[in-house]
Amino acid sequence: MLLGIIQGGPLSIFINVPSLVIVFGGTAGNTLVHYPFSDVFDAFNVAKKTLLYKEQSINDLIVQLMEFANKARKEGILALQGAMDEVEDEFLVKAMQMAVDGQEPDTLRSMLMTEVEYIQQRHEKGANIFLAIAAYAPAMGMIGTLIGLVQMLQTMDDPAAIGPAMAVALLTTFYGAVIANVFCTPMSGKLKTRSESEILVKTLIIEGMQSILSGENPRIMEQKLHAFIAPKLRESTFK
Amino acid sequence: MLLGIIQGGPLSIFINVPSLVIVFGGTAGNTLVHYPFSDVFDAFNVAKKTLLYKEQSINDLIVQLMEFANKARKEGILALQGAMDEVEDEFLVKAMQMAVDGQEPDTLRSMLMTEVEYIQQRHEKGANIFLAIAAYAPAMGMIGTLIGLVQMLQTMDDPAAIGPAMAVALLTTFYGAVIANVFCTPMSGKLKTRSESEILVKTLIIEGMQSILSGENPRIMEQKLHAFIAPKLRESTFK
Amino acid sequence: MLLGIIQGGPLSIFINVPSLVIVFGGTAGNTLVHYPFSDVFDAFNVAKKTLLYKEQSINDLIVQLMEFANKARKEGILALQGAMDEVEDEFLVKAMQMAVDGQEPDTLRSMLMTEVEYIQQRHEKGANIFLAIAAYAPAMGMIGTLIGLVQMLQTMDDPAAIGPAMAVALLTTFYGAVIANVFCTPMSGKLKTRSESEILVKTLIIEGMQSILSGENPRIMEQKLHAFIAPKLRESTFK
Amino acid sequence: MLLGIIQGGPLSIFINVPSLVIVFGGTAGNTLVHYPFSDVFDAFNVAKKTLLYKEQSINDLIVQLMEFANKARKEGILALQGAMDEVEDEFLVKAMQMAVDGQEPDTLRSMLMTEVEYIQQRHEKGANIFLAIAAYAPAMGMIGTLIGLVQMLQTMDDPAAIGPAMAVALLTTFYGAVIANVFCTPMSGKLKTRSESEILVKTLIIEGMQSILSGENPRIMEQKLHAFIAPKLRESTFK
Amino acid sequence: MLLGIIQGGPLSIFINVPSLVIVFGGTAGNTLVHYPFSDVFDAFNVAKKTLLYKEQSINDLIVQLMEFANKARKEGILALQGAMDEVEDEFLVKAMQMAVDGQEPDTLRSMLMTEVEYIQQRHEKGANIFLAIAAYAPAMGMIGTLIGLVQMLQTMDDPAAIGPAMAVALLTTFYGAVIANVFCTPMSGKLKTRSESEILVKTLIIEGMQSILSGENPRIMEQKLHAFIAPKLRESTFK
Repeated sequence: MLLGIIQGGPLSIFINVPSLVIVFGGTAGNTLVHYPFSDVFDAFNVAKKTLLYKEQSINDLIVQLMEFANKARKEGILALQGAMDEVEDEFLVKAMQMAVDGQEPDTLRSMLMTEVEYIQQRHEKGANIFLAIAAYAPAMGMIGTLIGLVQMLQTMDDPAAIGPAMAVALLTTFYGAVIANVFCTPMSGKLKTRSESEILVKTLIIEGMQSILSGENPRIMEQKLHAFIAPKLRESTFK
Repeated sequence: MLLGIIQGGPLSIFINVPSLVIVFGGTAGNTLVHYPFSDVFDAFNVAKKTLLYKEQSINDLIVQLMEFANKARKEGILALQGAMDEVEDEFLVKAMQMAVDGQEPDTLRSMLMTEVEYIQQRHEKGANIFLAIAAYAPAMGMIGTLIGLVQMLQTMDDPAAIGPAMAVALLTTFYGAVIANVFCTPMSGKLKTRSESEILVKTLIIEGMQSILSGENPRIMEQKLHAFIAPKLRESTFK
Repeated sequence: MLLGIIQGGPLSIFINVPSLVIVFGGTAGNTLVHYPFSDVFDAFNVAKKTLLYKEQSINDLIVQLMEFANKARKEGILALQGAMDEVEDEFLVKAMQMAVDGQEPDTLRSMLMTEVEYIQQRHEKGANIFLAIAAYAPAMGMIGTLIGLVQMLQTMDDPAAIGPAMAVALLTTFYGAVIANVFCTPMSGKLKTRSESEILVKTLIIEGMQSILSGENPRIMEQKLHAFIAPKLRESTFK
Repeated sequence: MLLGIIQGGPLSIFINVPSLVIVFGGTAGNTLVHYPFSDVFDAFNVAKKTLLYKEQSINDLIVQLMEFANKARKEGILALQGAMDEVEDEFLVKAMQMAVDGQEPDTLRSMLMTEVEYIQQRHEKGANIFLAIAAYAPAMGMIGTLIGLVQMLQTMDDPAAIGPAMAVALLTTFYGAVIANVFCTPMSGKLKTRSESEILVKTLIIEGMQSILSGENPRIMEQKLHAFIAPKLRESTFK
Repeated sequence: MLLGIIQGGPLSIFINVPSLVIVFGGTAGNTLVHYPFSDVFDAFNVAKKTLLYKEQSINDLIVQLMEFANKARKEGILALQGAMDEVEDEFLVKAMQMAVDGQEPDTLRSMLMTEVEYIQQRHEKGANIFLAIAAYAPAMGMIGTLIGLVQMLQTMDDPAAIGPAMAVALLTTFYGAVIANVFCTPMSGKLKTRSESEILVKTLIIEGMQSILSGENPRIMEQKLHAFIAPKLRESTFK
């Protein structure tokens, strides 16, 4: 896209401070009337985390949980304490800590599920806030263009000045369209897609740790976990 | 936004009385055909209250309710009479008055819940009325611009007059867009967001007062109230 | 709005017979393909009645029903015969007539409820027909403008004639926007709002007459009826 | 509408073969990618039948069914054989044939209901296909106009040629709007409205024939059938 | 459509590399932010398969299943091993293999149903991804046109250059409209239509194989299978 822009002339013609003020300021203002500041701030935080979130292989996770299950069976639940250092996923570490601390399986499940629900709510709120910005930005862009057009038409002395004035007036529409369609709508979509896979990972962890704590047969535990994923992706650790 | 406008010329070019009459008059007319006058009046009242509504710290409220619970346990329910003077929230004062007056816990709950439902309904109606205005205003703006264009095109004698005439014609579209996107849509969103947090505060008050009246153990009462808020925000008063 | 139009030139420039034929004829044609003639005719009848419908005070109605309840308790159900002359609401007269005729409470309720359902269906159909017209009219307006533009562009001999020809072409868009946004959409909204309050009045009448016929205690009857309205509006007739 | 067109010039300026090819061909192509050919063909067949469908008086149908009920009661079910010649409605003939053939009431009901469901599904599919065409046609119209504009702007030698070229470019938008708004959307609406009344007629026939076969009391049968229609339309055959 | 384009000038005027980069690159970028790469890749795979999917005659399938049923009755279930070579449908082969391998009817059903559900989910995801592309492409087209307009208006020296520059600016809108309306929307619709008929075929196979494995009477099995298709299409194999 930058390529296409550069070919047609200097990038500087796409930068106009009053236009930026109208679109960014107006959109920010509308969004902050609609949502409290803390929620908008959270939405950007969630978005940042989601972009940095490293998609975890579901199969690797199942293999890892099966290892912990076998370890816990042989050496007791406290053996998980040592394994915790190698684990990167914070949620899994927390679940293991709770298991090592001697929580009941049901308590562990209900406490972690509550946390998953709050994560899900935060993601949904974030996706909605980005959708709201994607609706406000083009509206502010249109308002900015109307302002520019009215000013231009009122003071139309020099026909040669019409072109550049019109170009500036169109810039706010351009900013609004870019904010909405290049940033906010795809980001809202990504938040939804990532939220689904993050929730799936966390649900698997909860199911797995509950199984381990209950001392279930590892084969049955593997079947349970496999039920969450597509048939073709299932790779048994038992041969 | 004002900055951007001012830079381009005097603000006076954005004011045109017939245009204002068409957009504001037309939108008001449509809205008052759609909704009875009393409902529209209520919507603006609710909006005013919502803008002035001081967001209450949920944690402070829980701490306050825990204090009342301890006081009621030690000195009896009538001791709340004295504490009522320091309380700002009208709904909490009402709930305490009912408790001091000797209402049964269930009666207190059902009477206050009915009131919360009516508050919720009023907020929803208000949000819908602002959405309706946000739909009528741009439509009236477009009609105004069409009127202006037809008049201009019919009497096109002097090419130099086209610009300003066109500018005036576009003003109604501008007014419609501003009413819809800068005022009504964000206001409708704010009404929904605020309604949720106001309802949450009132529900906590009802739960708390019912607990106090029933003489429940303060620790259990705190757990109940904490269930309404995010895990990270919970601060126990018991150390 | 008329003010704004008049200021800009004679009203006659907004009247163009072929444009009117295209928009009104086309919209009428589309609507009559979509809905049978009798339904469209009914919708306009319902709209007329709704506009003339005098909003009834719910409190006055409850007071009146309480009077009838007391009268029926003291002088017997037949005493309502005399009171019927003062009643304006046709539905209430019908309900009283049925009570005086000796109908069972349950029969009275089910027969009147059936009628309320048909009224509700008629209102909904009416609101939908106005929404359909509000969708067809701007579409026909756009088609008319396209016809005008094509004709103008094909026969562009005299540049001076472009303005008025363009003005005429825009008239159909103007007509379509006015039909949709100034008449049909608010009318559809009004039908919904009025329908709700009319149904509420009729439901109160049914509840009240059933209570009277069953010989219920007036205090209990008043509580039942009050449950339909906001707490602040309730005014007991018992002091 | 034709009137309005004719006044402005010869109809021939609205006919342009390449434009017709783009809009009709493109819309047909899209529709046939979306739906199999047989379904689209069926939709047009259903539409044709719906347009020719003679709205049947519900009251006449009830009167007729009551006659058959009385005849069957007096002369036996086989007497319906003779009455079948006067009946126009194919579905009623089929129902009577099944009754004369000695089908059980429940079998008759379930077999005819299955057929009604398939009719309903076919109508719905038809209405959806017309809606899809109504969505594809304006899109193809816009694409055609873009093609025309690009061609015109690229080869802009003679200013006098701009008008007619622009007129031709707008023709595809015009075709798309006419296909969508004058044909497909009202037709889709009509299919839904007619489907409802056709289903109502068929349901009445099924209910009536089942009643006749079960030898129900005609008065009860009339009450059952009247339950399907508005109170005001009910005319008892018993005086 | 090509015809219409060719008539107006050389096809080359519709090709502009920077415009293609903006629309295709931008749309691809947005889609890949929204959905993970593997899902988008899958969607195109599903679309390819769907286009190549040979619509299977439901009647032929039922006849074939009836043959297998008769064969299995006479010669035992293992006789299906030989018949598998003539079968083209992979899903049917898999079902037969499971039957020959001695799976229980219920296991066969539940295992195949799980697979059908995953197929359905993949189709739905595919249809949604094409809908998302159909939403992003016109947005990127509009952004590209805005870029082109701003560049053109800023550097408006030669009036003769306006036409071609405007034509190039419109190309991105044209590309966006073609991607959305000629490719993605009909493809999304086709995925839904085909998905339905593919699922129907697979459900029939599951029902049939379960019937065969359970040793049900072929006449009853035929009635069961016929219940899935329209009455007029049913052709019994029993005369």
